[in-house]
Amino acid sequence: MQLQMDATSLDRFLAEAFPQVADDFVIETVGEELVVRLLVGHGHLRPGGTVSGPTMFALADVGIYLAILARIGPVALAVTTNASIDFLCKPAAGRDLIARVRILKLGRVLAVGDALIFSDGDAAPVARASMTYSIPPK
Amino acid sequence: MQLQMDATSLDRFLAEAFPQVADDFVIETVGEELVVRLLVGHGHLRPGGTVSGPTMFALADVGIYLAILARIGPVALAVTTNASIDFLCKPAAGRDLIARVRILKLGRVLAVGDALIFSDGDAAPVARASMTYSIPPK
Amino acid sequence: MQLQMDATSLDRFLAEAFPQVADDFVIETVGEELVVRLLVGHGHLRPGGTVSGPTMFALADVGIYLAILARIGPVALAVTTNASIDFLCKPAAGRDLIARVRILKLGRVLAVGDALIFSDGDAAPVARASMTYSIPPK
Amino acid sequence: MQLQMDATSLDRFLAEAFPQVADDFVIETVGEELVVRLLVGHGHLRPGGTVSGPTMFALADVGIYLAILARIGPVALAVTTNASIDFLCKPAAGRDLIARVRILKLGRVLAVGDALIFSDGDAAPVARASMTYSIPPK
Repeated sequence: MQLQMDATSLDRFLAEAFPQVADDFVIETVGEELVVRLLVGHGHLRPGGTVSGPTMFALADVGIYLAILARIGPVALAVTTNASIDFLCKPAAGRDLIARVRILKLGRVLAVGDALIFSDGDAAPVARASMTYSIPPK
Repeated sequence: MQLQMDATSLDRFLAEAFPQVADDFVIETVGEELVVRLLVGHGHLRPGGTVSGPTMFALADVGIYLAILARIGPVALAVTTNASIDFLCKPAAGRDLIARVRILKLGRVLAVGDALIFSDGDAAPVARASMTYSIPPK
Repeated sequence: MQLQMDATSLDRFLAEAFPQVADDFVIETVGEELVVRLLVGHGHLRPGGTVSGPTMFALADVGIYLAILARIGPVALAVTTNASIDFLCKPAAGRDLIARVRILKLGRVLAVGDALIFSDGDAAPVARASMTYSIPPK
Repeated sequence: MQLQMDATSLDRFLAEAFPQVADDFVIETVGEELVVRLLVGHGHLRPGGTVSGPTMFALADVGIYLAILARIGPVALAVTTNASIDFLCKPAAGRDLIARVRILKLGRVLAVGDALIFSDGDAAPVARASMTYSIPPK
């Protein structure tokens, strides 16, 4: 596997394409596996201090999207067509979330990846997600 | 099917349990089908003016959750355990989203519902979602 | 919506493309909704007399596939790319299964449909499925 | 993680609980990861020689089920409540399928696992599946 983009260029892409949310994410590793951290803030929480479902969805979506871009280069128009997510246990309060992403298929029109999401420092995942992206013709 | 909560009591529950997001949603119909409107605002948009995936996820999640509560009464601890969502086409810019929800299973420990999401006024759905909730023992 | 194939031509297609399983299915209605019956036989059962999960998967797959073909004509190469299925309750022993199918998206490269599956004669569904198909270029 | 059942006792369980299909499967590894082989036969094929979708569904279902039983002991009544599957590419003709399974959650009432499915000898997966099982109270 040859990568077209490294963490710096993915960061720059994220800031330009998704300025509203780019500051929430830190790309930690780009390689066979991509690791992205969500800096959990007040806006991500539900009463009781747990991270909301849509926030975990967004983390998986960003992570898998970036892992695809790392392989095919910046394609702002790739869109999520399907997502499946299992919420396994309640995230720990007051901790960042870490998504570990792998790409399972990189086709001409469809790409598929999955992610495990962890509370920072924990060994058991809090969520699992798989997503499909439609890649526009060049 | 007998309902335990009407639109007014669901509204009040939403305001108390999810104060951060309650103002985004308007419950339009509660019955065999529940209809909820997302008042699309700037924070829900992606560049280009389209509603973000996590926002559509949140709409389906809130809608199915409320449809379950309408049937079993206020159970703040019911949690989403699984979600599957298909993004079918790009939502129309500058329009609210409408989720039409039905409950498919209401068991002792699990409840399942699905939702079709529409751009307000359109006949073709922009997304389909199904979600499972775990209901805590009483 | 204009249909390209009716029940007779779908039946003939099924017999030619899937001779191993075609005799298990009866296409009952083709229209906005497609209804297909699975003639439950010994090979579909698990111990206890309940229909197996893979059998319900196959029923939803065949039903959604046929509903797509009814709209686009015989395209033997359309392939399932994603499936999500919720098993809601145990099917009644000794009864056929009925799948009620609707098509939610019919795009140039992707089509999405969903199905509710019922034990014949029951009002509550035993399973819900949604599936995506990739349509080959002409 | 402590295992309650090894390959031999899982094999015996499979033969007793699912006599119709037990001969199709060979349990190769039981540990943190469980590996199960499907001996692909004529009945699993679609025209063109490719393995059918329901067959891959069944392989993932059996594999994840066995991996849960390996951890909790023989519980014949655990039932699949949700499955999500991505078909990534066409399996190679004339080769067995291998499922590599991991358990992501083992709760009191729900267990979640996922599987990657490979054509024997290939490095790229042909399918990905995640499934949830409801565990009956003891």
